[in-house]
Amino acid sequence: MSLTRIHNFSISLDGFATGEPQSLEAPFGHAGQRLHRWMMATRSWDAEAGSTGVDNAYAERHGPGIGAEIMGSHKFGPPGWHDDPDWKGWWGPNPPFHTPTFVLTHHARPSIEMEGGTTFHFIEATPAEALETAREAAGGQDVRIGGGPSMVRDFLAAGLVDHMHLVQVPIVLGRGVRLWDGLEGVEAAFDVEAVSSPSGVTHFTFTRKAS
Amino acid sequence: MSLTRIHNFSISLDGFATGEPQSLEAPFGHAGQRLHRWMMATRSWDAEAGSTGVDNAYAERHGPGIGAEIMGSHKFGPPGWHDDPDWKGWWGPNPPFHTPTFVLTHHARPSIEMEGGTTFHFIEATPAEALETAREAAGGQDVRIGGGPSMVRDFLAAGLVDHMHLVQVPIVLGRGVRLWDGLEGVEAAFDVEAVSSPSGVTHFTFTRKAS
Ligand SMILES: NC(=O)c1ccc[n+]([C@@H]2O[C@H](COP(=O)([O-])OP(=O)(O)OC[C@H]3O[C@@H](n4cnc5c(N)ncnc54)[C@H](OP(=O)(O)O)[C@@H]3O)[C@@H](O)[C@H]2O)c1
Ligand SMILES: NC(=O)c1ccc[n+]([C@@H]2O[C@H](COP(=O)([O-])OP(=O)(O)OC[C@H]3O[C@@H](n4cnc5c(N)ncnc54)[C@H](OP(=O)(O)O)[C@@H]3O)[C@@H](O)[C@H]2O)c1
Repeated sequence: MSLTRIHNFSISLDGFATGEPQSLEAPFGHAGQRLHRWMMATRSWDAEAGSTGVDNAYAERHGPGIGAEIMGSHKFGPPGWHDDPDWKGWWGPNPPFHTPTFVLTHHARPSIEMEGGTTFHFIEATPAEALETAREAAGGQDVRIGGGPSMVRDFLAAGLVDHMHLVQVPIVLGRGVRLWDGLEGVEAAFDVEAVSSPSGVTHFTFTRKAS
Repeated sequence: MSLTRIHNFSISLDGFATGEPQSLEAPFGHAGQRLHRWMMATRSWDAEAGSTGVDNAYAERHGPGIGAEIMGSHKFGPPGWHDDPDWKGWWGPNPPFHTPTFVLTHHARPSIEMEGGTTFHFIEATPAEALETAREAAGGQDVRIGGGPSMVRDFLAAGLVDHMHLVQVPIVLGRGVRLWDGLEGVEAAFDVEAVSSPSGVTHFTFTRKAS
């Protein structure tokens, strides 16, 4: 069975998954790199000096078993990226997705084939429709919901997420885009587990209850 | 040295320390008892069947070394309590404070002496003034900041808290009163530690950095 999964999605104590304002110079606004330092310190990111404990165990689950990603328009580029016909994402010629990657946007454009197996497709679709399309492209493997928070919220609200890995970083951002808005009671559909790491972050897994 | 401490202060994943609406029948609104079930399941609450692990270790720290408490008006009673001259708090004749207890309110009334060492005093004062008053009454012991979230926020914003123990419960409340509003960057003044419990909650301690 092909699952819908979220990995390494990082939030502050007050629930923000990005700071503000988002820009070319600061993709996470005033949050800078603070939401993802835990990940950059793991072996999965830093092959030589990275840590190999619980943070790395979670971080490594990002790739295996995934056949396609769906991401939001504001993850793909800074405000106004769609006015730049040459914008191909933040990640250079060989992006870390290595699968078909569907960008949800009201500014569709032709697909872009990158190195390493990533092809960006631009679609305007409901979460359920986008998932159906991505599932087909995933060839029986799982689909990753890549974020940002607005589209993660939409997929959670639509009941489409089977597994969610969140990482709570002990900082209070105060402003940006929140994950939890409009999701009262969302935990009821999941088994929730929390494990704090010596690095200071806390990992949460939300696993859909058997129905 | 007399410290200012917060204990067993429970919040949801989305940062709410109470649900809504607060009333005589439902002191925590739609949150019901969900924010404090972890505590009721410990030995410190249930002397016979309670658990004796990490949740209890934290819960037991509530009393020792405390010489006075300061609490907010909405912890002391439901909306409108000040129109009832007989209201003496939620806790019966022997409240679990056992020290002078200062209720911050714009509706001051004469002090009320209860059994077991608790005396309620009603004061209108800034956080710093209230702390000075409570510190004097504490006779060299520590002062506990009892909540709710609005007054905790005020004391944090004023830089008056030395130690804060928070308990994050894995539920999304969606509405109520948030702890973190207006506290961007508050973690910078503290050493923060997180430890998740087999019960599912995560304990955070914020300990003021040596200056
Ligand atoms: N904390 C983390 O782990 C994490 C992970 C990923 C990203 N991020 C950060 O999150 C931020 C972006 O998040 P965000 O919440 O602002 O935005 P987002 O979820 O990335 O994108 C939302 C936008 O995507 C488009 N979109 C969404 N659903 C659509 C649909 N059904 N059909 C067509 N278009 C749709 C719309 O943009 P248009 O109308 O403009 O096309 C919408 O405004 C960035 O700062 C990013 O770096 C953080
Ligand atoms: N999650 C937890 O662990 C926890 C702990 C404690 C309480 N709670 C819950 O939190 C809720 C209450 O919290 P809350 O944020 O609504 O209110 P609160 O912090 O208990 O009380 C705020 C009120 O106290 C009075 N006040 C505050 N500062 C004052 C000052 N400097 N001078 C004079 N009066 C002052 C004002 O009321 P007036 O103007 O009306 O006097 C103000 O509206 C309740 O539901 C309670 O059960 C939760």
